[in-house]
Amino acid sequence: MSSTAGQVIRCKAAVAWEAGKPLVIEEVEVAPPQKMEVRLKILFTSLCHTDVYFWEAKGQTPLFPRIFGHEAGGIVESVGEGVTDLQPGDHVLPVFTGECKECRHCKSEESNMCDLLRINTDRGVMIGDGKSRFSKDGQPIHHFLGTSTFSEYTVTHVGCLAKINPAAPLETVCIVSCGISTGLGATLNVAKPTKGSTVAVFGLGAVGLAAAEGARLAGASRIIGVDLNPSRFEEAKKFGVTEFVNPKDHDKPVQEVLAGMTDGGVDRSVECTGNVNAMISAFECVHDGWGVAVLVGVPNKDDAFKTHPVNVLNERTLKGTFFGNYKPRSDIPSVVEKYMNKELELEKFITHRVPFSEINKAFDYMLRGEGLRCIISMEN
Amino acid sequence: MSSTAGQVIRCKAAVAWEAGKPLVIEEVEVAPPQKMEVRLKILFTSLCHTDVYFWEAKGQTPLFPRIFGHEAGGIVESVGEGVTDLQPGDHVLPVFTGECKECRHCKSEESNMCDLLRINTDRGVMIGDGKSRFSKDGQPIHHFLGTSTFSEYTVTHVGCLAKINPAAPLETVCIVSCGISTGLGATLNVAKPTKGSTVAVFGLGAVGLAAAEGARLAGASRIIGVDLNPSRFEEAKKFGVTEFVNPKDHDKPVQEVLAGMTDGGVDRSVECTGNVNAMISAFECVHDGWGVAVLVGVPNKDDAFKTHPVNVLNERTLKGTFFGNYKPRSDIPSVVEKYMNKELELEKFITHRVPFSEINKAFDYMLRGEGLRCIISMEN
Ligand SMILES: NC(=O)c1ccc[n+]([C@@H]2O[C@H](COP(=O)([O-])OP(=O)(O)OC[C@H]3O[C@@H](n4cnc5c(N)ncnc54)[C@H](O)[C@@H]3O)[C@@H](O)[C@H]2O)c1
Ligand SMILES: NC(=O)c1ccc[n+]([C@@H]2O[C@H](COP(=O)([O-])OP(=O)(O)OC[C@H]3O[C@@H](n4cnc5c(N)ncnc54)[C@H](O)[C@@H]3O)[C@@H](O)[C@H]2O)c1
Ligand SMILES: [Zn+2]
Ligand SMILES: [Zn+2]
Ligand SMILES: [Zn+2]
Ligand SMILES: [Zn+2]
Repeated sequence: MSSTAGQVIRCKAAVAWEAGKPLVIEEVEVAPPQKMEVRLKILFTSLCHTDVYFWEAKGQTPLFPRIFGHEAGGIVESVGEGVTDLQPGDHVLPVFTGECKECRHCKSEESNMCDLLRINTDRGVMIGDGKSRFSKDGQPIHHFLGTSTFSEYTVTHVGCLAKINPAAPLETVCIVSCGISTGLGATLNVAKPTKGSTVAVFGLGAVGLAAAEGARLAGASRIIGVDLNPSRFEEAKKFGVTEFVNPKDHDKPVQEVLAGMTDGGVDRSVECTGNVNAMISAFECVHDGWGVAVLVGVPNKDDAFKTHPVNVLNERTLKGTFFGNYKPRSDIPSVVEKYMNKELELEKFITHRVPFSEINKAFDYMLRGEGLRCIISMEN
Repeated sequence: MSSTAGQVIRCKAAVAWEAGKPLVIEEVEVAPPQKMEVRLKILFTSLCHTDVYFWEAKGQTPLFPRIFGHEAGGIVESVGEGVTDLQPGDHVLPVFTGECKECRHCKSEESNMCDLLRINTDRGVMIGDGKSRFSKDGQPIHHFLGTSTFSEYTVTHVGCLAKINPAAPLETVCIVSCGISTGLGATLNVAKPTKGSTVAVFGLGAVGLAAAEGARLAGASRIIGVDLNPSRFEEAKKFGVTEFVNPKDHDKPVQEVLAGMTDGGVDRSVECTGNVNAMISAFECVHDGWGVAVLVGVPNKDDAFKTHPVNVLNERTLKGTFFGNYKPRSDIPSVVEKYMNKELELEKFITHRVPFSEINKAFDYMLRGEGLRCIISMEN
């Protein structure tokens, strides 16, 4: 039992007081974990687009002050009532979508969309009692995605923590907590390319490159990267992407360009852009008869996916996935093992590192589209 | 070797001289089969919507005179050069989409969309030499779907014939040649419901009821039939359909009605209407996390399948199929065996029988929406 168990912990957290304004490192209070909750010490966290999106809060109900952050690695400090799976000292990755192990989704082999703990971007409180565990001078601060990892200590539901090999370096495997697993799983668990097949990846950000990494692990012989931003192509070469297509370089729709390059269409495609036109192209570029397209990108509220039904009838498959269909507690430990076995290469995703005091730099890199993942070290 | 081998056969055929006009029974000449072709004697044929659709020829390039018909059972009369799989006397079902056994599709485990012999509604001639085998007084008559079964004798590519158990009664199993296999395979091969699951079938024509038959064979515990025509519900009770929904009886979209009946959505849906709104509803009514929707209906030329991409992202799957993903030569014999083993019930699909001389009655039944399948006996 740690000496802090059951006590309020005072520690540093990066608080977003207002939409789009730089985070401020504040001293906050973190209440002890309640029933089915865990308090953990965050050692490393990284920035993902979803943080930036809700920090900008464009076209959403703003929820401030708030502590963002959902991609991280940490160590359990103490556990609340009813938690038997985890104990202080365990190494964990918090995940924005949980696994209660009790609901129809958790019991289904196919779904990871837990009824209780699936992603909820509007909730700023704990699920158990509807309250926040963070406060400053008595004022509550909202949670984000049930993780809020931009804090030295945070509290999460036990269902949102994957217990991982304690030998795994948290400064690297922390990125398995969101984007990398999302892209990797979209390919390995959902698109499932067979050895020797051709895979198109739309969008060569961290998620798309993780999808390409999945295609490499699956033994794809051709991995075609599609992006509107040609500066992404240089970086993508490290990820086994063998060919590049910039839709802007062509007069005809990119699905026709890809069909021309591949004798009728690719075997699998994975869309990691969030752009609805890319989603439609990603679907229409797969080969009739056996092609499978997987959507990963988060669309805008009023987008419509539109295609002629004959494109479906011609034996194409369209699927979507959250978090690469990984169930966080059951499956994420094995993704970390893939890294430990040197199958999965994580280092190439990490392009920047900053101390916690400079967390706003990570936002700048992302807003400028520089690099892939910036790791933020909580202990400077 | 039959005495007619190598000779032109004179026989009766129902010729469509003009779009939408009653067929005329004529004496026609049927040339001998050429390389990779087979000539067969049709014993029983039945009428399918696709015949009526191209006979009406609305909004299509009309191709007349033509001999329609593609759902049938027959016996091989003679074979052309290079045909080794079949010999005179074999019992066969002609199929509108063939299997060459050589192309990428035929070699793929997933596809039945043979590059060489896939459905082509615009072609009115044989694939080998671009000529017709039918003529009357020297004037060629067009083929239809490579089968043209409304004739006592017809010529097809060997790849369009499934060799079946000679003990199977052709007057019944002839319907396996198109609609029944399409619906059955859409469920068994593509939607693949697990035992105890809930399946929605949109459209309760012969194809939809065959899809329901597939759900029954797969052990579905609830089969929900959706149709705009309430007169279809009575017939559907024989097919294991347990519940009925008429979208017209509800103010809210039928996908919401189904979600309400099934705690969030059905496990599988099979769309057999050809109506694009039903296609969209069939997709949106499947449960998030694991639901699979299969499109079977043939849409109109300008239809658009439209849905919010989040419906896909929420881990739903959309698929389409031709001929239930069956490869005609490899798989159809086993569908006939399912009937022989008394697993598959075919009799309930046969609601009418007419002699060849009254073939236009079969058109009338279908145009009036009466019954499911009308069997036409070539020998009165
Ligand atoms: N489904 C999930 O569980 C999940 C999880 C994390 C992220 N995401 C989503 O995945 C997507 C990718 O995330 P990321 O962090 O890699 O983003 P990113 O912004 O780093 O990368 C997106 C890339 O897509 C490219 N792009 C945009 N429109 C395009 C188009 N029409 N055609 C081709 N390329 C185009 C951009 O140039 C960019 O390089 C985002 O939409 C994100 O919200 C989904
Ligand atoms: N993909 C293939 O290989 C293949 C093969 C054969 C037939 N088909 C197609 O399958 C479809 C069904 O064929 P069938 O012979 O059973 O047709 P059918 O006309 O006998 O049955 C269609 C049924 O759908 C119902 N319907 C129409 N619109 C509807 C809607 N919006 N909601 C609910 N019900 C609706 C009708 O009332 C009718 O009962 C057709 O589109 C046909 O062209 C496809
Ligand atoms: Zn993320
Ligand atoms: Zn759950
Ligand atoms: Zn048919
Ligand atoms: Zn073929």
